[in-house]
Amino acid sequence: MDIDNREEIIELFDIYGNLLTEKQQTYFKDYYFFDLSFSEIAENYEISRNAVFDQIKKAIANLCDIDSKLCLKNKFVKIKNAIDDETLKAKIEAIIEE
Amino acid sequence: MDIDNREEIIELFDIYGNLLTEKQQTYFKDYYFFDLSFSEIAENYEISRNAVFDQIKKAIANLCDIDSKLCLKNKFVKIKNAIDDETLKAKIEAIIEE
Repeated sequence: MDIDNREEIIELFDIYGNLLTEKQQTYFKDYYFFDLSFSEIAENYEISRNAVFDQIKKAIANLCDIDSKLCLKNKFVKIKNAIDDETLKAKIEAIIEE
Repeated sequence: MDIDNREEIIELFDIYGNLLTEKQQTYFKDYYFFDLSFSEIAENYEISRNAVFDQIKKAIANLCDIDSKLCLKNKFVKIKNAIDDETLKAKIEAIIEE
């Protein structure tokens, strides 16, 4: 998956992010959630811009690999789609996002 | 978790089993699903009984570690408990178990 597929990548991170290494989680959040550039992240942690880029690319590859094995993104969509009642749907969404 | 906590271990395998190594999945299934003994598994794959035991112990440790990070077992229970309608509950259970 391309590093620019922001929305889909963040969805995967929300489900599987805790399985990434601590370093990968940190750079990922800095980049996707706090909107820092590769160069800014590199400067903050005193590493090269390339190292940051590689870690984020690896993190995305890991997230995709895990999802190809567990298919939870799709499963959660199917669960939500199966529920018509809006109150129940909101409740289930809250559980999924906990 | 103890190797004898059969029911709970199988539940974790059903959710996260695909993240184990191929070898771990094979020995796990032979032991928990096909009810082979450690010695029988060892004989089939021409390895030591201890190696089989170690792989299954490692597989269980991995499953527990993954669940401690993703908490999906608990999440699925909560989703099922939130649904009163029996038909919908069965539908959601089928999606979870897909």
